[in-house]
Amino acid sequence: MKHNSIPGSVTAPQGFLSSGVFCDIKRLGTGKGSNKGQKRDLALIFSETPATVAGMFTTSQVCAAPVKLSQPRASKGRAQAIVINSGNANACTGAQGLRDAKTMTEVTAKILCISPEHVVVASTGRIGVTLPMVNVQRGIRAAADLLNSSRENAGHAAEAIMTSDTRPKEIAIEFKLDGRTVRIGGICKGAGMIQPGMSMTGARPAATPTGLHATMLCFITTDAAVEAKALKAALTEAVANSFNRITVDGDMSTNDTVLVLANGRAGNKGLTIKSADFRIFQNALNHVCLELAKMIVRDGEGVTRFVTVRLKGARSFADADAAARSVANSSLVKTSWFGGDPNWGRILGALGYSPAKIIEEKIDVAYSAPGSSKLLFALKKGQPTKTTFDALCKMTAQKEFDLHINLNLGKAEAVIYASDLTEEYVDFNKGDVSDPSSLGG
Amino acid sequence: MKHNSIPGSVTAPQGFLSSGVFCDIKRLGTGKGSNKGQKRDLALIFSETPATVAGMFTTSQVCAAPVKLSQPRASKGRAQAIVINSGNANACTGAQGLRDAKTMTEVTAKILCISPEHVVVASTGRIGVTLPMVNVQRGIRAAADLLNSSRENAGHAAEAIMTSDTRPKEIAIEFKLDGRTVRIGGICKGAGMIQPGMSMTGARPAATPTGLHATMLCFITTDAAVEAKALKAALTEAVANSFNRITVDGDMSTNDTVLVLANGRAGNKGLTIKSADFRIFQNALNHVCLELAKMIVRDGEGVTRFVTVRLKGARSFADADAAARSVANSSLVKTSWFGGDPNWGRILGALGYSPAKIIEEKIDVAYSAPGSSKLLFALKKGQPTKTTFDALCKMTAQKEFDLHINLNLGKAEAVIYASDLTEEYVDFNKGDVSDPSSLGG
Repeated sequence: MKHNSIPGSVTAPQGFLSSGVFCDIKRLGTGKGSNKGQKRDLALIFSETPATVAGMFTTSQVCAAPVKLSQPRASKGRAQAIVINSGNANACTGAQGLRDAKTMTEVTAKILCISPEHVVVASTGRIGVTLPMVNVQRGIRAAADLLNSSRENAGHAAEAIMTSDTRPKEIAIEFKLDGRTVRIGGICKGAGMIQPGMSMTGARPAATPTGLHATMLCFITTDAAVEAKALKAALTEAVANSFNRITVDGDMSTNDTVLVLANGRAGNKGLTIKSADFRIFQNALNHVCLELAKMIVRDGEGVTRFVTVRLKGARSFADADAAARSVANSSLVKTSWFGGDPNWGRILGALGYSPAKIIEEKIDVAYSAPGSSKLLFALKKGQPTKTTFDALCKMTAQKEFDLHINLNLGKAEAVIYASDLTEEYVDFNKGDVSDPSSLGG
Repeated sequence: MKHNSIPGSVTAPQGFLSSGVFCDIKRLGTGKGSNKGQKRDLALIFSETPATVAGMFTTSQVCAAPVKLSQPRASKGRAQAIVINSGNANACTGAQGLRDAKTMTEVTAKILCISPEHVVVASTGRIGVTLPMVNVQRGIRAAADLLNSSRENAGHAAEAIMTSDTRPKEIAIEFKLDGRTVRIGGICKGAGMIQPGMSMTGARPAATPTGLHATMLCFITTDAAVEAKALKAALTEAVANSFNRITVDGDMSTNDTVLVLANGRAGNKGLTIKSADFRIFQNALNHVCLELAKMIVRDGEGVTRFVTVRLKGARSFADADAAARSVANSSLVKTSWFGGDPNWGRILGALGYSPAKIIEEKIDVAYSAPGSSKLLFALKKGQPTKTTFDALCKMTAQKEFDLHINLNLGKAEAVIYASDLTEEYVDFNKGDVSDPSSLGG
């Protein structure tokens, strides 16, 4: 099915307003730190009418106050506004942090004249510092004043949720459902601390990354009419195949959050899991989530390569997932990608210590252009092929390529979207001891 | 008990000879690559009389030919010589690799007039290229000619096993056993691909690192008389508390090997597990292994900090181990160490996604000078203390410090010896696409 891209993002669907403002959240936590050019740091997304909501959250045992507050609210299935701040994760902030997150939703609800229970909240930024609530409240009021449905405002919201991202991440598509034109729009942020393993309940997904860290946030709006249960099912599938399949540095964050609001303004007949059209909506949501997830990897801290690890022939999905992540998170594999080096020795090494069952003498390793089925084999049955080193280097010199691994042991497969590990990543993350505000970042 | 350091290493115990020569192994595999200054690349260690042997090997499912050959031989408990090469790991080399490893032991046995079954072999270097056997055989002959018990020759062996190590690693100690003076000597190499998880049988140890990569090799000699079963037990304990507790980059190698030869020349009464003196020997072996293991971390690729992660208060050893490794292998924690940044937010983040049970509100985090019990608390019960940022920075500015984490959930504890992650590590490992010999390194 073709998904028509349309301009804008969260305000592309009917009945959604948004805004993004600067209220100086990062600097004020500690009296230090910088927010160059006064980048926007508070965003609002508002549906003119109450909407169905679904959310997926970090499965880290150290989860931030906004996650603790929003998870039970999202599970009730009804919401109308999302308030988001960057610059401060409101994580490891104890009882005060929970009070602050609640206050954010109450202030938002009051201004927008809706129930506080219908406001969800997300935060990203440094850990362990309480929010400068005077500024946050001023920001919420300013953002509420500016709410509108323009493309420009959606861009402001996308900018406001950024931390170490170098560019805003936005998408919108439209498609037909039940004879009506339906739209889905989304914004997200990532950069570092990226290997999400989200669920709706805090229970870890079957194949869980055991590493992940900067926070990824994603907010999706749609004017489709979707029942709460169906929206939850759709988001679970979409996240399982997108955000939960990416890794930048193998670190999972305390704040990872994906939220979707569906306000039904497109006028289609309300979708249930059993609707004939449900798969159309599902595919569209999958597309939006996957495109946004890939943007996060491409804009990861210091990233210069985007590698799609396609692992097949595993005995089970858990094995396929574990083997693919073992390769995608190996420091030695990632640094070789940085160097454009087709080092299959390190790939075999990472497969060897993975918890997945493998047999060295059965493994095939190949490279291809992104999405291409024309494979250049480096290894067959565990042995080097006659492919020249130069030919392999030509492939891995590209900014984007696919790595194909066939364990030849079964029928299970898994894909992981990964980045390289660069000196710039290390330089970016080594911290600045002259700046206490870097403490939890 | 005090362990007197003595000069030398593997030739310090009576009845052991060694040598190290250059025979151009690295360059000849591919016709390219460099071995600057003709660094020695083949070592021999020989006991004048047959000795008891014990060995621990990588638990990677992709293990090198020398591991496949030496593991069953070591398990028989009797050996007299060890032949080791650097520059080529003889891994992923199929049937030819196994034949080459066997030939190495046969050539060595013939020259030394001993049984081939009493020769064990180890290799380290690049993966997937067969050994240049003409050079290897010439090297073995040259090394056999030079065998002697001098301190200088032990140093040559230590140099010959190095790959990306910046310095040879040697130790020797002496102590009293049964009224006799007993000596233990050892050499090792490491640098990258370092998070060993070794066992004698290939079965993974209870707490297994799920990541590890350059190979660590260690060879230990002793003139103590120790029965095979007792030597296996002693090595198992010593490795569990030393080499299996270190991580440089979280990558496990295909070639990790620790071998110990005990020739009984000290004349003590043969030790069994039930001997009253067994604990004295065990403690001495523990000391030797731990000192060598720490040398590997300190000389890891690009390493600038040595951090001892002391995790306690876990519900089980498996939890303690998993939590400590999660912190010690987090890219974000490791880069913050590089920057001298006491970033406890990232430490909590890594604990949060660890498979170990934790409760954020119970966690204490503190720093101390190495081995000191004077703790500087950064976090108590999940909340920042009043310790100033400057005071924390002063601690993490040191080249070596201890990180204390108390989960306050139980009585289990684990220690991991870890390094930072630096730009130099990335630069070193990004590979050189102008050099096909870098393929498996």
